[in-house]
Amino acid sequence: MSSEFGKILRVGVFGQSHGGAVGVTVQGLPAGESIDLEELQRFLDRRKPGTSPLSTARKEADAPEFLSGLEGGKTCGAPLCAVIWNGDQRSSDYGELRDRPRPGHADYTAWVKWDGRADMRGGGHFSGRLTAPLCVAGGIAKQILAHRGVYVGAHLASVGGVRDAPLPLHPTAALFAEVAAKPFPVLDDDAGARMQAEILAAKNDLDSVGGVIECAAVGLPAGLGEPMFDGVENRLAAALFGIPAVKGVEFGAGFDAAARRGSENNDPFLMEDGKIRTETNRAGGILGGITTGMPVTLRAAFKPTPSIGRPQRTVSLSRGENTELQIHGRHDPCIAHRAVPVVEAVTAAVLLDMLLEGNHGTF
Amino acid sequence: MSSEFGKILRVGVFGQSHGGAVGVTVQGLPAGESIDLEELQRFLDRRKPGTSPLSTARKEADAPEFLSGLEGGKTCGAPLCAVIWNGDQRSSDYGELRDRPRPGHADYTAWVKWDGRADMRGGGHFSGRLTAPLCVAGGIAKQILAHRGVYVGAHLASVGGVRDAPLPLHPTAALFAEVAAKPFPVLDDDAGARMQAEILAAKNDLDSVGGVIECAAVGLPAGLGEPMFDGVENRLAAALFGIPAVKGVEFGAGFDAAARRGSENNDPFLMEDGKIRTETNRAGGILGGITTGMPVTLRAAFKPTPSIGRPQRTVSLSRGENTELQIHGRHDPCIAHRAVPVVEAVTAAVLLDMLLEGNHGTF
Amino acid sequence: MSSEFGKILRVGVFGQSHGGAVGVTVQGLPAGESIDLEELQRFLDRRKPGTSPLSTARKEADAPEFLSGLEGGKTCGAPLCAVIWNGDQRSSDYGELRDRPRPGHADYTAWVKWDGRADMRGGGHFSGRLTAPLCVAGGIAKQILAHRGVYVGAHLASVGGVRDAPLPLHPTAALFAEVAAKPFPVLDDDAGARMQAEILAAKNDLDSVGGVIECAAVGLPAGLGEPMFDGVENRLAAALFGIPAVKGVEFGAGFDAAARRGSENNDPFLMEDGKIRTETNRAGGILGGITTGMPVTLRAAFKPTPSIGRPQRTVSLSRGENTELQIHGRHDPCIAHRAVPVVEAVTAAVLLDMLLEGNHGTF
Amino acid sequence: MSSEFGKILRVGVFGQSHGGAVGVTVQGLPAGESIDLEELQRFLDRRKPGTSPLSTARKEADAPEFLSGLEGGKTCGAPLCAVIWNGDQRSSDYGELRDRPRPGHADYTAWVKWDGRADMRGGGHFSGRLTAPLCVAGGIAKQILAHRGVYVGAHLASVGGVRDAPLPLHPTAALFAEVAAKPFPVLDDDAGARMQAEILAAKNDLDSVGGVIECAAVGLPAGLGEPMFDGVENRLAAALFGIPAVKGVEFGAGFDAAARRGSENNDPFLMEDGKIRTETNRAGGILGGITTGMPVTLRAAFKPTPSIGRPQRTVSLSRGENTELQIHGRHDPCIAHRAVPVVEAVTAAVLLDMLLEGNHGTF
Repeated sequence: MSSEFGKILRVGVFGQSHGGAVGVTVQGLPAGESIDLEELQRFLDRRKPGTSPLSTARKEADAPEFLSGLEGGKTCGAPLCAVIWNGDQRSSDYGELRDRPRPGHADYTAWVKWDGRADMRGGGHFSGRLTAPLCVAGGIAKQILAHRGVYVGAHLASVGGVRDAPLPLHPTAALFAEVAAKPFPVLDDDAGARMQAEILAAKNDLDSVGGVIECAAVGLPAGLGEPMFDGVENRLAAALFGIPAVKGVEFGAGFDAAARRGSENNDPFLMEDGKIRTETNRAGGILGGITTGMPVTLRAAFKPTPSIGRPQRTVSLSRGENTELQIHGRHDPCIAHRAVPVVEAVTAAVLLDMLLEGNHGTF
Repeated sequence: MSSEFGKILRVGVFGQSHGGAVGVTVQGLPAGESIDLEELQRFLDRRKPGTSPLSTARKEADAPEFLSGLEGGKTCGAPLCAVIWNGDQRSSDYGELRDRPRPGHADYTAWVKWDGRADMRGGGHFSGRLTAPLCVAGGIAKQILAHRGVYVGAHLASVGGVRDAPLPLHPTAALFAEVAAKPFPVLDDDAGARMQAEILAAKNDLDSVGGVIECAAVGLPAGLGEPMFDGVENRLAAALFGIPAVKGVEFGAGFDAAARRGSENNDPFLMEDGKIRTETNRAGGILGGITTGMPVTLRAAFKPTPSIGRPQRTVSLSRGENTELQIHGRHDPCIAHRAVPVVEAVTAAVLLDMLLEGNHGTF
Repeated sequence: MSSEFGKILRVGVFGQSHGGAVGVTVQGLPAGESIDLEELQRFLDRRKPGTSPLSTARKEADAPEFLSGLEGGKTCGAPLCAVIWNGDQRSSDYGELRDRPRPGHADYTAWVKWDGRADMRGGGHFSGRLTAPLCVAGGIAKQILAHRGVYVGAHLASVGGVRDAPLPLHPTAALFAEVAAKPFPVLDDDAGARMQAEILAAKNDLDSVGGVIECAAVGLPAGLGEPMFDGVENRLAAALFGIPAVKGVEFGAGFDAAARRGSENNDPFLMEDGKIRTETNRAGGILGGITTGMPVTLRAAFKPTPSIGRPQRTVSLSRGENTELQIHGRHDPCIAHRAVPVVEAVTAAVLLDMLLEGNHGTF
Repeated sequence: MSSEFGKILRVGVFGQSHGGAVGVTVQGLPAGESIDLEELQRFLDRRKPGTSPLSTARKEADAPEFLSGLEGGKTCGAPLCAVIWNGDQRSSDYGELRDRPRPGHADYTAWVKWDGRADMRGGGHFSGRLTAPLCVAGGIAKQILAHRGVYVGAHLASVGGVRDAPLPLHPTAALFAEVAAKPFPVLDDDAGARMQAEILAAKNDLDSVGGVIECAAVGLPAGLGEPMFDGVENRLAAALFGIPAVKGVEFGAGFDAAARRGSENNDPFLMEDGKIRTETNRAGGILGGITTGMPVTLRAAFKPTPSIGRPQRTVSLSRGENTELQIHGRHDPCIAHRAVPVVEAVTAAVLLDMLLEGNHGTF
């Protein structure tokens, strides 16, 4: 039970960076859902590297082949399996790193866990490449949610110290589509330009930089989720921390709430169009683990890419002594902007799972 | 699968704030572990309210009665069940709130989920009172971990805008014990005094204030946890978000990492006393979801107590119109300082679960 | 994850035979369900020993105390906890058995597993006494199912070589009630008399005898369950094998089907009252793991009580040599007749879980 | 959570009979295990149809392609994915059956569950074809178990009314290998010849016949499994009922135990070569859900193939009226003899999962 999540909808990824293929299985998909494969490809392309100087020069053809679960463009009740064949690999780039774990990567922990027997070429199963099949599953979940008026979207909230504008109280599907269509996924393009400058500056310094992604889901009914350990926050957080490089997750006001007073943080209830809503949404659409019907909002913190061109101190595993390493090859100076669809994907998959499970409060 | 967590060690809490009792079951405890009940009581007392003007004046006698699982002071292989009988309750304080959901509480979401049929007196199953049995389970887990040289400790990292000193790179069991013995759980007592002033100021304003708790676990072996969705971060986060009022969880440098460069965030490996360690610990002891052997560090953000004495805007559920409410009765102006042992409890239970599960990397 | 089962509805039992109490927690109960406690007590009484020469002379007052989850006679959304305090215990009866594992009991395997540290007095957590709290959970599940027109009932299908009449193709709630009201739970009282004679003969021989219980559930919708590993059979079997002494489980024609031809075993479909039914029900209401809408039928084989008064060969654990033992004290010469409500209880809990989960085939 | 099972080792199958491929993912495999692909192929060939008049004439090339998890002939820590491309399909054979559910098949229940939207060509995801990838996973598990001296083997215990000789008290790896190498997997070839005559007689009658498979695992340590709901029987049964056509599962003496007296059914303990064993093994190597160290033995009942050439009564789903159908095409007159490796596969996967999980009785 390592590389999968979900309860009714179970998503499991497989593959190594330099193996034959990466892929995903999805169990529990409802049958008869039309999947627009072109829309799915556009979603996958948002994650794809190699399209700008901001990303690695590696080419990854993220074209999924469906082995099961999809017939005639519709889900067919059986578990879905999609694979993305691996192409442009340069294992030689990594060969020499085997003995010297890269700081910030899973090389060392994998070496301990699997006693040196894991396939860690290109990061192996820990590679960001595994987020491609994750986006296949999440992209499908997004489409199924949209069939029911639930929309999931995200933007790059910050890179280094530069912040994007905040999401409005009630984001719309149109806003999500607008951001998704941009080459750089921000609300405020001026902020976006400064973020890009930040990334290029890091690149020029043979360095990297981190970022924060903000994601929202609108259109969810109130009443989803369970108290304590099986709530919306528990399940979203558990899955989001599965995205490589995520080191923090917060909902609504999150860590800022800890610095506030109750009178500033509570969301007053009010009637609006005959419905109960909250005037503000510092709760991120979740109270007691259960959806309020307001947008679910979350932020995930991505650490800077650990692969940097500068010399770094490390150890030789075989000799047990201090040494240095310098990582060559092609690497992203920032992964946060490419991870925006990944956060959407995981969020959509978890929320579809919860919607499918339904509200078991009464029978 | 709502009020429980864990895989080998399963912790499940039950009870409502104003029901007969609250309690906890723990499945999967190893047999033959001595449990020091006095030490456990001291641990529970750290959470207890009613001991200072900083907390609610309610009296809660958090004395657990063990119905099973413990014989002659030792675990006996069978599932453990402990109950804490409910005493000092004033349901009348809450009666009038039934129709007007309190902002920031689960009243409204519970009303939607259970169609008005949940027992929500005193917050029902959502009450902070449920953290008492959680501490019974976690306090036992802490003792079992300590038998193996694994120590879990925490401090109040901030209240409102006031920050405590940071934990050292290698916290010790002695440091944890020192903080645990203090009436106010901080490293720097001057900072603690300013935090207490902040809490009292909020109380005087009929308001409340939030805080952040930092927790660490030392002595864990490297190699625990799985890649992607079943790693240390996934499981700790999933459980920590089950503590009422937690809105954010981060590991190591967390959200700060997103503002850093890779060269500032990577932890260089080095040999120390013949062991591989990292010079810094921005990873919080976790790379790729797997423990590095360095201290696991995390922070949990607690929102300000939603119960405040000021008038607040809300709605009448029965009449579907806007109204106001004013919460009377006894409430904590801050819960973060009382939640320090709760964060330790949950962290210990999750880590014991992972230690019991072991490292399945090789056979 | 040992002493619990279920997905939406989670049932967990705790307690040791000679500890303070045995009990059960039930998570995921829908709120607002009226529970008739007198009816529940009558259900529990069907399992109770001490009422006839066919059973052990031990007195067990199986009166549950509800600690949570039930307010004003209704489920309230929170996890339910019920305890049955232990009374009439004679640990001295068992003291001398510690070193000499009883054949057919879990004494030896528990000794290996917990390294001699388990509380095995009276069978400890393996005792048939644990089926009392299981019946509390299952009795509640039965009532909730009955609110929706789903009825679960069982009879003693055989004892030793004596067989009861078979259940009709469409058993009714009235038939179930009739059998449940009998002092000996069979359809054909003549067969029942022969079974009782079989039990008394075994008792007179200081021996015991096994039996088979047949259980049916009527009123379930078609379409529940999943293909392959999460179907109705998988989940019922997994839970039924948790009842002490069960060594076989079969559905519909079960093992008899293996001796038949397809033309004799297939159930022809036909229209009846505008509904699709099957003419026979050798499938036990389940095809491909999914309910057909016909009664779900199953049989569980109970081995003879391992506690017999005759001298038996065993080993001394401390001395590692062959020895004998003779079990004194009060034991059931047959447990199958007392286990009828237990099979109903487990079946009802699993089916309520599946009904709550619903049919996720389409959205 | 439908087409997968396991806790540490998670096996999930995907694919439809007439889709692009069938396959399996295996999460949680230990790294560094050598897998002999030729031995695996021989194992898969035991299940393959088309080799004798006893089976369907369909050709299925069960050659797995490994997409991940296996590098240089060894497991590499990452989830394994293997696919078997579908070849020889004749969807037209099934086209006309869409409106008339075949008795004994999942056509009707799938139609209800997925509202007519499932891909049921050739049985879809319910097809026996899915047991091929299951054998890939189980064949790998068998090899890993054998590395540790745990051997799993099975034989055809009966077909219709003809019975094979019983397994000896202590089956050996050599015996398992001998049976596996036979064209018809029985201990007593005379009984095997009578079974084959039974199958051919059924075939000549345009009919089919069922059978029972007996499986054993030797070399397991004592102490595996948990009391009540997470024991060896619970987990094996839950998985075994996932094999298409299984309608009954029993352990040790199973249903026969219900007809016995305790003195005949209890297994006396005795010292043998300094080890504690039992003189007989009616418990099937399991007491209280926990392994005794004796061989684990089980039997699974397979119903006769529902596809028979005779005319059968059914309904028209579209017209809601009674009708007939006659199944043409190629079908197995018995599947039990081909299912012998499938039972081994599932048993091996479950037992490897339990071995990996280990014995958590003490720490």
